[in-house]
Amino acid sequence: MKIALAQLNFHVGNFELNTAKILEHIEKAKVEGVDLIVFSELSVCGYPPYDLLEQRDFVYSCINAVNDIATHCSGIAAIVGAPSLNSNPSGKQLFNSAYFLSNEKIQQIVNKSLLPTYDVFDEYRHFEPNRQFNIVNYLGKKIAITICEDLWDDQPTENSFGRTRLYTRSPMEELSKFSPDLVVNISASPFASKKSLIKKSLFTGHAKRHHVPLFYVNQIGANTELIFDGGSMVVNPSGNIIDTLSLFKEDFKIYDLDSAKQDVSEDKAADIQEIEKIHSALILGIRDYFSKMGFKRALLGLSGGIDSAIVAVLATEALGSENVRVLLMPSKYSSDHSVKDAIDLADNLGIQYSIVNIQPIVDSFLGVLIPLFETEKLGLTEENLQARIRGTLLMAASNRFGNLLLNTSNKSEAATGYGTLYGDMCGALSVIGDLYKTEVYDLARFINRQREIIPENTISKPPSAELRPDQKDSDSLPDYSVLDDILFHFIEMQQSLSELLTEGKSEEASKKALRLLNINEYKRFQMPPVLRVSAKAFGFGRRIPIVASLPR
Amino acid sequence: MKIALAQLNFHVGNFELNTAKILEHIEKAKVEGVDLIVFSELSVCGYPPYDLLEQRDFVYSCINAVNDIATHCSGIAAIVGAPSLNSNPSGKQLFNSAYFLSNEKIQQIVNKSLLPTYDVFDEYRHFEPNRQFNIVNYLGKKIAITICEDLWDDQPTENSFGRTRLYTRSPMEELSKFSPDLVVNISASPFASKKSLIKKSLFTGHAKRHHVPLFYVNQIGANTELIFDGGSMVVNPSGNIIDTLSLFKEDFKIYDLDSAKQDVSEDKAADIQEIEKIHSALILGIRDYFSKMGFKRALLGLSGGIDSAIVAVLATEALGSENVRVLLMPSKYSSDHSVKDAIDLADNLGIQYSIVNIQPIVDSFLGVLIPLFETEKLGLTEENLQARIRGTLLMAASNRFGNLLLNTSNKSEAATGYGTLYGDMCGALSVIGDLYKTEVYDLARFINRQREIIPENTISKPPSAELRPDQKDSDSLPDYSVLDDILFHFIEMQQSLSELLTEGKSEEASKKALRLLNINEYKRFQMPPVLRVSAKAFGFGRRIPIVASLPR
Repeated sequence: MKIALAQLNFHVGNFELNTAKILEHIEKAKVEGVDLIVFSELSVCGYPPYDLLEQRDFVYSCINAVNDIATHCSGIAAIVGAPSLNSNPSGKQLFNSAYFLSNEKIQQIVNKSLLPTYDVFDEYRHFEPNRQFNIVNYLGKKIAITICEDLWDDQPTENSFGRTRLYTRSPMEELSKFSPDLVVNISASPFASKKSLIKKSLFTGHAKRHHVPLFYVNQIGANTELIFDGGSMVVNPSGNIIDTLSLFKEDFKIYDLDSAKQDVSEDKAADIQEIEKIHSALILGIRDYFSKMGFKRALLGLSGGIDSAIVAVLATEALGSENVRVLLMPSKYSSDHSVKDAIDLADNLGIQYSIVNIQPIVDSFLGVLIPLFETEKLGLTEENLQARIRGTLLMAASNRFGNLLLNTSNKSEAATGYGTLYGDMCGALSVIGDLYKTEVYDLARFINRQREIIPENTISKPPSAELRPDQKDSDSLPDYSVLDDILFHFIEMQQSLSELLTEGKSEEASKKALRLLNINEYKRFQMPPVLRVSAKAFGFGRRIPIVASLPR
Repeated sequence: MKIALAQLNFHVGNFELNTAKILEHIEKAKVEGVDLIVFSELSVCGYPPYDLLEQRDFVYSCINAVNDIATHCSGIAAIVGAPSLNSNPSGKQLFNSAYFLSNEKIQQIVNKSLLPTYDVFDEYRHFEPNRQFNIVNYLGKKIAITICEDLWDDQPTENSFGRTRLYTRSPMEELSKFSPDLVVNISASPFASKKSLIKKSLFTGHAKRHHVPLFYVNQIGANTELIFDGGSMVVNPSGNIIDTLSLFKEDFKIYDLDSAKQDVSEDKAADIQEIEKIHSALILGIRDYFSKMGFKRALLGLSGGIDSAIVAVLATEALGSENVRVLLMPSKYSSDHSVKDAIDLADNLGIQYSIVNIQPIVDSFLGVLIPLFETEKLGLTEENLQARIRGTLLMAASNRFGNLLLNTSNKSEAATGYGTLYGDMCGALSVIGDLYKTEVYDLARFINRQREIIPENTISKPPSAELRPDQKDSDSLPDYSVLDDILFHFIEMQQSLSELLTEGKSEEASKKALRLLNINEYKRFQMPPVLRVSAKAFGFGRRIPIVASLPR
């Protein structure tokens, strides 16, 4: 049996595009004599559809598209993902389903059993879990179809209070009773740094335990915050990876079922550094946000610092230098080297820049505010004012030129509230809001691995917001190497202060970090969507009440 | 048996405060010879805790507090709500539990069976559903304890594609097999306009069907967006409401079980207008946001229009006139009557106001932007600029005086994107973001029911943003009476365009509204939290992807 894996980039709700892509690959597979072609989870509508699943038209558009695709399945079978209606009048309205199509008809519908409802996933919000297990018979072979989380019944967790067995059922245990000839897993599994090892061990573990080949097809492409990395794979019954599909791009490959049973001495999976994956993920995240929203051009403020430098580089790689425009907006607190560093970077990238001195605008605000406030010492108010004037200028340029504003905040800043709401926290998309400052430096070094794109001075100088004379980040925050380590333990590992202290973290720095983290939920609530590259990003996957009495 | 219902305002994570409140009411009940005192769902930690339930310290603080409370239960029993640990190694880590405390010990733990996972509720994210049903025996009586959603197995839905039976189990059917003497329901059921009738019919229906008295205790108080209205009640076995507790404030009442079985000729429930409930809800929402966040004073921009007028009134009622400060920020497009109307309102309310002419600041921006943009015609850019200058001034005043900025956008504006991000969309809390413009007028008339607080001219003049000469909202939007009706059908009822057209709505207005609704998800993503008073508010309970191909 010849099996094709189609790893494609779907656009949520774009039924015309998604169906056309699916049909194009079915035709391609037919030409190659493929017996079965497999698409990813909810491929027909794109993942994640969220509450669009509550709209009748959306659901029927999915079902109509599946029926349409089925009519093209002659001489070939296809597995596509789409919601299906729950015929039981009790329970959630829908199932998250794999449709098995052949002979121009829907032959069988297999429903997802394990519904992830944690972090960024809300599947039980819309779907009823499957409780009846069945196999698909096709060309004399028994196919066990699983959907994403169905193979994640026993998953490791970073959270020290988390648990590995979130479900009371194990679909593979149930399906193995049928002695399947192969397992198919259709997924929409988003990228998170360091997650690929976990994923591989889950898949190879299942294949080995049940001595069955496994064909895994993942979605690729970004939909708002979530970046799907692809990396579809075939695992042999000994639990070795026979082959993988590309990371971060569409791919299409054909395998023979028998050859997928062959022995290999070791996993045939590319060994890619995590920082390179993050780099690719962020570029894909920007590119898809723009292309799927119908925009071409980006805009950002370039300060001479490392955060905006990185975002400018990533935007240029994603959209092309002709589509990126930057504003340099010095005030009287800006150092000369900041402007020079920013110009050097813009020149290196070949992007258009303009310099706007914000001091006259600062002064016009002060002319109004000093009498109103009855004081000449504005302190933090003046710092925030500069940031908000820059935000306003950037939004004006965005209005005027139609370039979308990119946000340049990093995760350390977002965590500690070291940023101005409606100022440097503006933007349509936060590009590096899921990278700690230390990771931003790692990425800068990766970007400069062959030649100096980001000026060395930008990387080597001490970080500063330049909102008051001789300001340094280290005036207000612990050193980033200390801070980021602490934040990781609070955010990703969800540890408590007492656990951190037991592990020997600095008490002063830990208390300060926890207090800042906890008093700034209100700011993060109004952040732009953050491209997610870690196991726990700010935004949709981390839901902390604003009004709460938290350790501070 | 004497039963006390304690309807209290809890602060999420404030274990000291919540425990003290619970203990105070246990002591009060003891003095009155009460046999059983009932507190609301998750009373020990406050509802909703969201992902704090993923933190070990938080969960153990809950359990420690329950153990502490238990030691005070001698000569009395108490039912308190808190998470409990799932001892099965599979499934979610926690249950959402009712602890039955007596003889200074935890006697029994009853777990919630139906976990709401829709709209603003995410309970399956953290909790495993109960599958084993049991009764509590106390003083010779059999008590069926249920937790909130457990009695909502058959609930009406506004969404035309929604369904009424979201669960495959019915806890009351299971519990009725034990022939209970009474049913207790502990809840954290947030206010939504028009929901109280549904709630009453569910409770009276269950009591009548199973011929058993029902004691319902709801949380009151606001936690960020969610406003819990209280309204706890006692229903007799004939399905009539014997008594209700206060709406929107703490209450404590004692009932005799036998007298709760008496017949009454009709429901003893106060008949309060929906607009009065919304008024009370918003005041409570503001008051609790401030008091629980540790703030006293509010700030807002007063334009002379109806939206900011309403917010100023509500803030004054919530916080006192001495704690509300307003800025009037006219530009050259502001009409004279706008300033006068705003001053009249400020005088009526006795709140402090300052007038800041923004024109010099507008001009300083234009001095920079006109050369940069190579045009004198800024159009929409200049409109947004004015709004952002006002936002920046308000945030500066917030920085300087420590007053929290209140947002004044309404639901019609938020729906259509008729507002400026980082401009009039600024603020810590959106007060009327869940009220359509027509409802804002209703509320203004309610506020003026006895005397003219909001100047009549503010109510009667045509709505205008005053960002360009002679601008009117009706230049850009359908009439609000038409628009709001259409938006309600799209948002609350989740109908499709074709359904609206079938019902005879205007095609032009419906298409325009749907397009505007769908292209503005990105703006709403960065809105402040919105006080929720409808069945479908923007924010946490409505999850539409930003990057999606929606009808437009």
